Amino acid sequence: MTRLYNDPVDFADEMIDGFVAANKNHVRRVSGGVVRSTRTPEGTVALIVGGGSGHYPAFGGIVGSGLAHGAAMGNLFASPSAQQVESVATAANRGGGVLLGYGNYAGDVLHFTQAQEKLNAAGIPTRSIAVTDDISSAPLAEKEKRRGIAGDLTVFKAAAAAAEAGYSLDDVVGVAQRANERTRSFGVAFSGCTLPGAGAPLFSVPEGRMAVGMGIHGEPGIEETDISTADELAERFVAALLEELPEGIDTVAGNRVGLILNGLGSVKYEELFVVYRRVSQLLEQAGLVIVDPEVGELVTSFDMAGASLTLFWLDDELEGFWRKPADTPGYRKGSVAAVEQLEASEIAEAEAVIIPVSSAESRAAGWVVYEAIEAIASVVDSNVDELGRIDAVAGDGDHGIGMQRGARAGAAAAREALEAGAGAKTLLDSAAAAWANRAGGTSGALWGVALSAVGASLGDTMEPGPADVAAGVAAARDAIMSFGKADVGDKTMVDALVPFSATLADEISGGTELATAWQRAADVATAAATATADLLPRMGRARPHAEKSLGTPDAGAYSLGLIVQSIAVVLASHREEEK
Amino acid sequence: MTRLYNDPVDFADEMIDGFVAANKNHVRRVSGGVVRSTRTPEGTVALIVGGGSGHYPAFGGIVGSGLAHGAAMGNLFASPSAQQVESVATAANRGGGVLLGYGNYAGDVLHFTQAQEKLNAAGIPTRSIAVTDDISSAPLAEKEKRRGIAGDLTVFKAAAAAAEAGYSLDDVVGVAQRANERTRSFGVAFSGCTLPGAGAPLFSVPEGRMAVGMGIHGEPGIEETDISTADELAERFVAALLEELPEGIDTVAGNRVGLILNGLGSVKYEELFVVYRRVSQLLEQAGLVIVDPEVGELVTSFDMAGASLTLFWLDDELEGFWRKPADTPGYRKGSVAAVEQLEASEIAEAEAVIIPVSSAESRAAGWVVYEAIEAIASVVDSNVDELGRIDAVAGDGDHGIGMQRGARAGAAAAREALEAGAGAKTLLDSAAAAWANRAGGTSGALWGVALSAVGASLGDTMEPGPADVAAGVAAARDAIMSFGKADVGDKTMVDALVPFSATLADEISGGTELATAWQRAADVATAAATATADLLPRMGRARPHAEKSLGTPDAGAYSLGLIVQSIAVVLASHREEEK
Repeated sequence: MTRLYNDPVDFADEMIDGFVAANKNHVRRVSGGVVRSTRTPEGTVALIVGGGSGHYPAFGGIVGSGLAHGAAMGNLFASPSAQQVESVATAANRGGGVLLGYGNYAGDVLHFTQAQEKLNAAGIPTRSIAVTDDISSAPLAEKEKRRGIAGDLTVFKAAAAAAEAGYSLDDVVGVAQRANERTRSFGVAFSGCTLPGAGAPLFSVPEGRMAVGMGIHGEPGIEETDISTADELAERFVAALLEELPEGIDTVAGNRVGLILNGLGSVKYEELFVVYRRVSQLLEQAGLVIVDPEVGELVTSFDMAGASLTLFWLDDELEGFWRKPADTPGYRKGSVAAVEQLEASEIAEAEAVIIPVSSAESRAAGWVVYEAIEAIASVVDSNVDELGRIDAVAGDGDHGIGMQRGARAGAAAAREALEAGAGAKTLLDSAAAAWANRAGGTSGALWGVALSAVGASLGDTMEPGPADVAAGVAAARDAIMSFGKADVGDKTMVDALVPFSATLADEISGGTELATAWQRAADVATAAATATADLLPRMGRARPHAEKSLGTPDAGAYSLGLIVQSIAVVLASHREEEK
Repeated sequence: MTRLYNDPVDFADEMIDGFVAANKNHVRRVSGGVVRSTRTPEGTVALIVGGGSGHYPAFGGIVGSGLAHGAAMGNLFASPSAQQVESVATAANRGGGVLLGYGNYAGDVLHFTQAQEKLNAAGIPTRSIAVTDDISSAPLAEKEKRRGIAGDLTVFKAAAAAAEAGYSLDDVVGVAQRANERTRSFGVAFSGCTLPGAGAPLFSVPEGRMAVGMGIHGEPGIEETDISTADELAERFVAALLEELPEGIDTVAGNRVGLILNGLGSVKYEELFVVYRRVSQLLEQAGLVIVDPEVGELVTSFDMAGASLTLFWLDDELEGFWRKPADTPGYRKGSVAAVEQLEASEIAEAEAVIIPVSSAESRAAGWVVYEAIEAIASVVDSNVDELGRIDAVAGDGDHGIGMQRGARAGAAAAREALEAGAGAKTLLDSAAAAWANRAGGTSGALWGVALSAVGASLGDTMEPGPADVAAGVAAARDAIMSFGKADVGDKTMVDALVPFSATLADEISGGTELATAWQRAADVATAAATATADLLPRMGRARPHAEKSLGTPDAGAYSLGLIVQSIAVVLASHREEEK
């Protein structure tokens, strides 16, 4: 469990502060994460990696010579926001274009894709690679759905070495894709982990048992067995990875492989070495040559107990890249050439926010919106543990803390915008960015686009009426469905949001005043959220690998129900005041 | 807890195999541990470090350019034997003399001191440094009694850099002593750890509590409190370390310090960074300049949860050494100059054993001795958990597994010697070396010297009689008291051994035949061992920091009682056969 923290809400920020303070000769902090503190030649492709925090050295710890140029560092187990990714990429860009590299998780895909669009729109040619090395997370036929685990490192290292060799963005992307195609991992877990300040583990594995294929955030694996001996585990690792050869490789013998035997935090070095002893025997017996094996902690999950084996099937070019030296805070290899430290002024930073002109009517509406966001923060606070428990059934259990961070940050940003004279749209945009930045994860992104969509409908200068609110909610619904790629019946928040929006629009177009209309719509949403518990389990498109259990509602739908109910209370109190 | 292993008895060996397989470009295995696989210039002082296994990267993981030339790798939490240290040092010696570096623990002191004597006798000038950085383990007035923890690294690194700079052995020793004097650490622990295959933790800390000053093998600390926040821990670390300045440093402000914030295994990188954030603020506020801080896992105890802060008070020369690059399996820094890999034939190895001529009478006595050692192995097997439990009260809880490894290895070596035609002395010498090598720790060394002393009295060619046995036991008693520096009343095995030896000698000189005399002496020994539970707690000289609890016998005395009783049974059965 995580024991050392101050206010849990500040953990990720304080962690990054300490990380940067301890590694000044490697990294410098920028908005959204870190970039190298050393000079990169003009025109080099910049590799920006990222993901949730809690996986050190992934991702900030692999910024430096021979590896990433920057890392977007999200909150605990939560994707960085698109804005964070964009900010780090902008700071690290050297005019050669940007490659975004991340593990293939829904939240990361959403945010990095959004950032990619924004960067391209801003004139920075940007591509991306989602690492999919975990063979337990989806069958071969659906390998694009697989999660990224310790194989992140082999893919990022190959791409980084290609970038440093002066390859063009297209060619760096080609190397990264080939490296990803040739990287396969297989893992097991023996225990879960407890996030800072959490009363209970985020997920767990029964004592003495081994969750085969469990993900690094506790995502379901393929089976549970008794803990095996070290040799048996080595045999299982090797058998699984030799069963599925990458495309273009027909026989095992005669190949050369890079290798990572990774520990997640509490399986320690000595145990990994005992396992490696047998792994290396088996691979050599199979006729493989192991090139520069890494045995240690490269992608962790706090003190989660688990281990994975990664094989990186080399060709001549990839072997050259794998062997290249690297010098980063958490991963060092060989001797890198001397590097020059950058001046602080040489790193591009995001610009200050400007508040657009607003009307008194819009600022008055903004006050109600601010109260609504405070109500959201309050209801999420009261339900944070419950939301985490519900989410843990099918997901990674971070929905409660993610929503809490997001709603608190959204409320604080809304208050600040209000005090700076913002209208309803600017206030909502500001709350949306803060929410997405601080919450991270899929739900953070979705609430960010939802708040922005409502804001666009309310504007900064008009006096918004009930029809504008209904239109804003409809726009939010469309944005969420398009961004999250989910339909009704996928057991996501969309199942509650669609009937909520339809009821609200019907009531308002039928002449019902806003507070009553909202309350009726909220009741429909609550019922629909509850009903997600009764649907048959299926593969939701927004979370492709999570089989949801019968009897547990979707966490996103459930929190949407709570939130619209809390807003109904705010609207009702304003109706009373107006009377 | 440790989950991945095969036969627990093989854990350390298999770990070293895997470690070497994963790090072929850094290390090569030799008898007793590892040496660098790269060329060291002729005439360089060789730094040989070592200690028990379970502390990776200490000690094998810090062999390589810029750090150690070799590491003697003991069994789990048990000192390497003198023979292991001697073997590694002989292999790594480049004609410039040897510096032995180790943490200040009783078992390590015994074995490294014995090795130092042997190496000097063999013409290899050898000195040693016992690191004493842990300020919680003894007051300043007794700082030579302090234990070595993460500060091992600063001392070894300074000594290694001095050796690579071409310093003479005397000058390298001077640097190491100054570095040790200027290195101070302070640690806390939140949980214990469970060794491979053990049914219970070796030691533990109550959930939610923090053992301030607990050692890395669970040695008692100075107090127990609730777990503090990260910032409070940082404040406690810094306050403790700024309170005791090294000799010659009068004021805090204006100094430069190397720094290690070390995690023991389960306190993870993110937590350490949160603590470091505040540590760095506090040290900077105090006017210190932090040079090349290291935040991570440098000395671990499997997955024990704990952390320590080490400050290394620099002068110009020490700062240069601290900043020097290093390239080892577990600790890398900067860019080292290119190194050349050695050929296997270039590493000196220990010679094969030669069996001296023996008489039939001595071989017959050797058979009885072999049976006695088998009986020892058997009684230890039956009592291994009980011995561990007793030892855990005052010590590090490894007495049971250490005795088990030692006795089994001793019995196997005795059998092999018997089959090779050895007499009683050679058989006992062989069993003694195997016991000390495999058992490690203090008790391993003591049983090694005891068996050798008995062997010297029995010889290889004479027919030993009861008086020779009594003389051998007396010699073993003297060797143990001299080697272990313990007297009667210190609550060690000496309390049982002295009356055992006296009774045996009395009975035999009075004409009692051997089996009866031995049984009477054994009964006296058992009573004396039991009585160690009734003595008042005091600081035993052999284990200077362990306050023993009233009501629990000393583990060494208790196992001696069991062992002499089991031998009595063997002698009685031989008496019956002779009748």
